[in-house]
Amino acid sequence: MGNLDLGSLIDMPWGSVVTTHIGKVFYLLKPSLHDLTRHIKRQTQIIFPKDLGFILMKLEIGPGKTVVECGTGSGSLTLALAWMVGPTGRVISYEREEKFAFLAQQNLKRVGLHQRVTFKLRDAKEGFEERDVDALFLDLRTPWEYLDQAYDALGGGRTLGILVPTTNQVSQVLEKVEQSGFVCPEVCEILLRYYKPNAERLRPQDRMVAHTGFLIFAKKVYKAKKSI
Amino acid sequence: MGNLDLGSLIDMPWGSVVTTHIGKVFYLLKPSLHDLTRHIKRQTQIIFPKDLGFILMKLEIGPGKTVVECGTGSGSLTLALAWMVGPTGRVISYEREEKFAFLAQQNLKRVGLHQRVTFKLRDAKEGFEERDVDALFLDLRTPWEYLDQAYDALGGGRTLGILVPTTNQVSQVLEKVEQSGFVCPEVCEILLRYYKPNAERLRPQDRMVAHTGFLIFAKKVYKAKKSI
Amino acid sequence: MGNLDLGSLIDMPWGSVVTTHIGKVFYLLKPSLHDLTRHIKRQTQIIFPKDLGFILMKLEIGPGKTVVECGTGSGSLTLALAWMVGPTGRVISYEREEKFAFLAQQNLKRVGLHQRVTFKLRDAKEGFEERDVDALFLDLRTPWEYLDQAYDALGGGRTLGILVPTTNQVSQVLEKVEQSGFVCPEVCEILLRYYKPNAERLRPQDRMVAHTGFLIFAKKVYKAKKSI
Amino acid sequence: MGNLDLGSLIDMPWGSVVTTHIGKVFYLLKPSLHDLTRHIKRQTQIIFPKDLGFILMKLEIGPGKTVVECGTGSGSLTLALAWMVGPTGRVISYEREEKFAFLAQQNLKRVGLHQRVTFKLRDAKEGFEERDVDALFLDLRTPWEYLDQAYDALGGGRTLGILVPTTNQVSQVLEKVEQSGFVCPEVCEILLRYYKPNAERLRPQDRMVAHTGFLIFAKKVYKAKKSI
Repeated sequence: MGNLDLGSLIDMPWGSVVTTHIGKVFYLLKPSLHDLTRHIKRQTQIIFPKDLGFILMKLEIGPGKTVVECGTGSGSLTLALAWMVGPTGRVISYEREEKFAFLAQQNLKRVGLHQRVTFKLRDAKEGFEERDVDALFLDLRTPWEYLDQAYDALGGGRTLGILVPTTNQVSQVLEKVEQSGFVCPEVCEILLRYYKPNAERLRPQDRMVAHTGFLIFAKKVYKAKKSI
Repeated sequence: MGNLDLGSLIDMPWGSVVTTHIGKVFYLLKPSLHDLTRHIKRQTQIIFPKDLGFILMKLEIGPGKTVVECGTGSGSLTLALAWMVGPTGRVISYEREEKFAFLAQQNLKRVGLHQRVTFKLRDAKEGFEERDVDALFLDLRTPWEYLDQAYDALGGGRTLGILVPTTNQVSQVLEKVEQSGFVCPEVCEILLRYYKPNAERLRPQDRMVAHTGFLIFAKKVYKAKKSI
Repeated sequence: MGNLDLGSLIDMPWGSVVTTHIGKVFYLLKPSLHDLTRHIKRQTQIIFPKDLGFILMKLEIGPGKTVVECGTGSGSLTLALAWMVGPTGRVISYEREEKFAFLAQQNLKRVGLHQRVTFKLRDAKEGFEERDVDALFLDLRTPWEYLDQAYDALGGGRTLGILVPTTNQVSQVLEKVEQSGFVCPEVCEILLRYYKPNAERLRPQDRMVAHTGFLIFAKKVYKAKKSI
Repeated sequence: MGNLDLGSLIDMPWGSVVTTHIGKVFYLLKPSLHDLTRHIKRQTQIIFPKDLGFILMKLEIGPGKTVVECGTGSGSLTLALAWMVGPTGRVISYEREEKFAFLAQQNLKRVGLHQRVTFKLRDAKEGFEERDVDALFLDLRTPWEYLDQAYDALGGGRTLGILVPTTNQVSQVLEKVEQSGFVCPEVCEILLRYYKPNAERLRPQDRMVAHTGFLIFAKKVYKAKKSI
């Protein structure tokens, strides 16, 4: 590719076009949130941007919100949540595996968002310590074992989100989610299809990611029905 | 459905379960960002939540950002952007049709986010007034006529986003986007497939929305290449 | 729409363009195999042409073949199979519900293909009477209860095909299919997406059929392994 | 993998299970039509089984039919057509590149179906020699240059099929297809999604073929409209 004098890049603005000594062209681009979540160091399956964006919409994540996540993993959702809640928001992330919690913390530090996150190194099966949170997301193997705990932590009318890769897991969640006090369960998947960006020969890419996971959403309501 | 005494709902928390005088059950749910953008009053085609979430990720919209949108339409993207930039961010939205601009303002007022938005009632073909903005989105019939103007308004390395419904429009954008100083063009579409939430008989819904639009993204770089 | 003198159509060739007395245009088109299977009289869910075509390819249906089908239903697969095996082939179709068997027979008679089909009004759970057939297809609610019977009827190395609508049924088939002497199980689904045929505004249709069923294929091998 | 004594396989029936001297298991399976079309020797892009099956349904290919194909290529469609028309049908296949025509002939000979096919080594732009054929398929770069010729060869009310990989080509066909005397144009694409065949962890494959081509169908009617 040729050599670049990295020192000379320091004062150049984002968006600059630079060429190596053999004429290869590079662009100075700040990694986007999409890029950061897509390319973090990972030891686990990460959540893809196509899913992250929809999760943010459905869980109504935004500036100032408090969100609990269970299953930190490599921290791709943690990073997106921390970004979106802003400096006035809060992310609490549970993980029982020390190596993943450590990796995710490193990933958040690298992008300067770790101060918006409280990492908790424990299994949330014993219960979440938070109450009345704005949103809660479960990204672990057996989410049906965490529904009652999620119910206790969420605020009324708030949305629970879950990601699982297999149809069997979807069925197991659906069997328990309404018993646990949630209503309006929704199951969906998001497919992202890229095209070859050629004006005269426009066509979809030959291959695509066909599956990342199934998304499940449900809303907490108060179990005891009140007549009016 | 029966009658509900709306007055009695006033002090009830979100998430309450209420029943009408004939026993029909309702839930008190605050509309989510997803619901708000999906169900605004509309006179134009709106941008769907599945696309909005991905646009937010790719354009790196978040607290404190300044975003320009061209083609306010009914305001569904305006609403999502205003939500995500928070009280410290800013959305500038261009629209040349007075009736749409008015409708969008009403929609934003209804959800209390209008103070984060500057509405400009004019055709941006003459140029955007802003410079160095964090992101810019074009949602209009002939986006290829606005690429130079978008280039001038965007900050270096920042992302331009475009939505168009037809493949012919995608080709027309691709023909001009690189000439206008953008690099790394990407074209994609997002498919959202819902499942029937039945644990014992899990299957996709019979029908789905098959197409909303094609998304195009590209990044601004400085046109004059500098050798190092 | 206006009136047409049907008598005057009798000697016109297929492909003729006719107009009613008020000028409305019609075409004289012979219904294709696609149209026939899509628009038969039905009391059950039918198999769609997108699935039928792939089933024919995978089960290697062609002139002269002998095929067993279980779950005649309204006869859409029966019709496609009868078409493809030609006058020298044979379709044997099992159905335990008399009203469906009768409807399917009427449907086949209407298109003149009933003489290629043997209808059997009984539950194949007791076993198929055929042996060494070229292909076998199960289109019923509990195909996992018919795998051993299918094994006995199929020729060595031949392909079994199954259609089920839910993921739970797919799992139940997969649990038993290899125990029953089949190998190389494959599970797939076929999505058919139509476009608006407009040269200047080419785009996918707004809505599509999102799901008909999951297709499962597997091949019969002889259970007792022989060392060489 | 170990060694197999191929001589000992000669009298074994299809579907036999054999093991090599180190215990690796193999199955004796006759290649299906699906396998044959998928794995022919190829120098060109082939038509995939998912598309072939649907083409057969739409073009109503079956025993005894006469079909013209233009763009023999490597012969995957030729093979499927020859299979389906049976010993009483006929396939005429045009190809202007000698090396492809030769390759396709070899591929057809290998499976014993070459006697059902007439190969014509010439560009059909000068016109097809056949008249009143049951179906006609165009698989070449500029199908819009062959529409009038296809019209002349097809029987009244019969279906023309076309495969093209890009949206630009679809638009170019649509611009001319109705002028050439065809009606009811349809454009579609077929997506085939495989699942991991695991009963306890059922999920779609991680990646899939996202695009092979767009299919276009239209029906010939007689251009001069007759009033009744």
